[in-house]
Amino acid sequence: MYKQNKKMSKLIIENSSEIFRPSARPARTPASVTREILKVIDTPGMISFAGGLPDDTLFPIQDLKYFFEASVSKKGAKLFQYADTQGHSDLRAWIADRYYPGSNADEILLTSGSQQALDLLGRYFIEEGSLILLERPSYLGAIQVFSSYAPSFLGISYGEEGPDMEELKYTLATSSEKPKFFYCIPDFQNPSAYSYSLEIRHSISELLLKNTVPIIEDTAYRELYFQENLPISLCELGPENTISIGTFSKTLSPGLRVGWIRAPRQILQDLIVQKQSMDLHSATLNQELVFGFVSSSKYEEHLSLIRKTYKKKSEHTFTCFQNNFKDSIPLQISKGGLFYWLEFPEEIDTDLLFRKCLEKGLAAVPGSSFFVGKPENNHLRWNFSNASEEETKLGIERLYKVYKSLSGS
Amino acid sequence: MYKQNKKMSKLIIENSSEIFRPSARPARTPASVTREILKVIDTPGMISFAGGLPDDTLFPIQDLKYFFEASVSKKGAKLFQYADTQGHSDLRAWIADRYYPGSNADEILLTSGSQQALDLLGRYFIEEGSLILLERPSYLGAIQVFSSYAPSFLGISYGEEGPDMEELKYTLATSSEKPKFFYCIPDFQNPSAYSYSLEIRHSISELLLKNTVPIIEDTAYRELYFQENLPISLCELGPENTISIGTFSKTLSPGLRVGWIRAPRQILQDLIVQKQSMDLHSATLNQELVFGFVSSSKYEEHLSLIRKTYKKKSEHTFTCFQNNFKDSIPLQISKGGLFYWLEFPEEIDTDLLFRKCLEKGLAAVPGSSFFVGKPENNHLRWNFSNASEEETKLGIERLYKVYKSLSGS
Repeated sequence: MYKQNKKMSKLIIENSSEIFRPSARPARTPASVTREILKVIDTPGMISFAGGLPDDTLFPIQDLKYFFEASVSKKGAKLFQYADTQGHSDLRAWIADRYYPGSNADEILLTSGSQQALDLLGRYFIEEGSLILLERPSYLGAIQVFSSYAPSFLGISYGEEGPDMEELKYTLATSSEKPKFFYCIPDFQNPSAYSYSLEIRHSISELLLKNTVPIIEDTAYRELYFQENLPISLCELGPENTISIGTFSKTLSPGLRVGWIRAPRQILQDLIVQKQSMDLHSATLNQELVFGFVSSSKYEEHLSLIRKTYKKKSEHTFTCFQNNFKDSIPLQISKGGLFYWLEFPEEIDTDLLFRKCLEKGLAAVPGSSFFVGKPENNHLRWNFSNASEEETKLGIERLYKVYKSLSGS
Repeated sequence: MYKQNKKMSKLIIENSSEIFRPSARPARTPASVTREILKVIDTPGMISFAGGLPDDTLFPIQDLKYFFEASVSKKGAKLFQYADTQGHSDLRAWIADRYYPGSNADEILLTSGSQQALDLLGRYFIEEGSLILLERPSYLGAIQVFSSYAPSFLGISYGEEGPDMEELKYTLATSSEKPKFFYCIPDFQNPSAYSYSLEIRHSISELLLKNTVPIIEDTAYRELYFQENLPISLCELGPENTISIGTFSKTLSPGLRVGWIRAPRQILQDLIVQKQSMDLHSATLNQELVFGFVSSSKYEEHLSLIRKTYKKKSEHTFTCFQNNFKDSIPLQISKGGLFYWLEFPEEIDTDLLFRKCLEKGLAAVPGSSFFVGKPENNHLRWNFSNASEEETKLGIERLYKVYKSLSGS
């Protein structure tokens, strides 16, 4: 019988599409440019400014070792047993207390990074064809996961002060369908690095509440300010219609995969049931390590260190761009976050620039990845938090050479 | 403006369904009986046999401490940085080597427990209305997550030797639609504790390959044998059409949330893209801890200890049932896994029994939770791995009292 199986399988292996018939989702999930980058990232000599990677020399490893020991001593076996879907109650209380005045632990659900929060919200809200609003450009990981639920996307231009309010008002007034939500990153956005002004925060909160449209506010970069703290969050302005998501990936460690959702209580109950069906719960140990660290006196010091280091890196990056590019691309010094959003002259196609850069041992993300619908093709997203000063200098020199070869001057 | 917001929100908070308009998924995801149990689980005096919880006194905490230190020393910051979606390559190689002869690390994707593997496969395969086959009864977590994708379920009776082959053949021959897959647990099934005989393994593998229907084989309990190792897995018999999922939740620690999918290479590539969109990757540290332990000499010792302990617990449980119930319910001594599947006389409604038990400080899961379509209402799933001997004795005495009060004799 085993032999017969073997023969049969030979017949069929050539035709495995007859066996595995996927849903429409795999085809709808764009294999992001990330995968193209990952393929070549380990090429010797490659320098990457592509990821949104924190500087891992800043990870407080000795402290995490200490908190691991302390947690195991304190919690013992419970750290390794099945746990509540909603997640570590002390960490939830800490998050509520720090980020959501007037909220409490009941309104927080812990997730495996904020990417899982996005998936969970896509799953919760989106039917095939549902209208959703997002900024233009927007975070590519959000575009990717929302796409798997097949919504109809509508992008609102994001400028230096925030979304274009006239465009948003016009969209809300004229669209035949009410949007399921507006997804936005008001703080040092990925990729544009723009933030919402205080005025825009008030206007947008008011406008969307009046239109009974939920806001999904992504706060991933909110703690990473180099000058001054950002204005009040949309969630604090309008907790009734705002779902907020956050993460410890940028402030502590992405590898631990600890993020969260804050939502009005009755919505959160439904999200918990979805989360339970998705993976029962996120790992207890990781939540305990995060809680140990962030609730200690170490956290504020650590945030200061990160801000100072990234500010310095952003300044160095800015200087290297000035030294090479002079006035050929407009650039303002970074106020926070992890990225420069480079704008090239319109005749430069950054998809092409990106591929030429890869050939020269340099990776950054072409701007087209951050648009739904018709993309703008003259941007490049440049991460400054991960590379060393020397790599940054070398990388920007390489970029300038490739740019010159394309601009033909 | 803030005041105005306050007023507006008051108006709207009474009508939040106007703001949040969910997709059909939340309504499709049955809030499992688990939640009803969780609500009362912390009541003083409550004894629970409801979860599939390992005995956490067996967790090798000192070893995990050792491997944590060793990992941090060896890998440093990389443990806490973003990582590859597919997961820890050495752990993938170890899994391939141990469980999938002829496969290699390329065919393995690490997941956040096997529950995430189920979600990922539901997402990959199921369109609304797609026909899927599963055992009758089946694992409630699989029913819950598959339900969120709205398939059409068809259950195949699971008896002591495996699924009813005549029923399966008839179903395949007569159903108007080809099933997307057959989901099965051939080893000490949750909830029935049944396993497939060698003969059934061969027949079912051959039948489904001939019909070009994929098998999703859930191996969660395969290592937990009390007498002898189980026959060859379906995946080893027919790797071409079998996707296998596994977990370290039962053999090492559920709280670490490390599971896997083994699938043919080209399918796995699509699954990796889906997984990336869902949560980027699972936590590196957890995979490193698992790898440290399972690749050491400690693992086989640990498995022996678990098997011996659970065998003893299952025997004690069996004895307590015999002492109380005598011949009033049929029961065979457990050969492996974590559960007894109690069958009461047909006039006993175990949904009612379950609620009466909760009132008396006793939790177990009513059989109806494990059926799609028309349930059988006279079973109860009883976990024996978690409770102490004393709790087991007391719990079974409580159960017997409630049973007697219902059977009216």
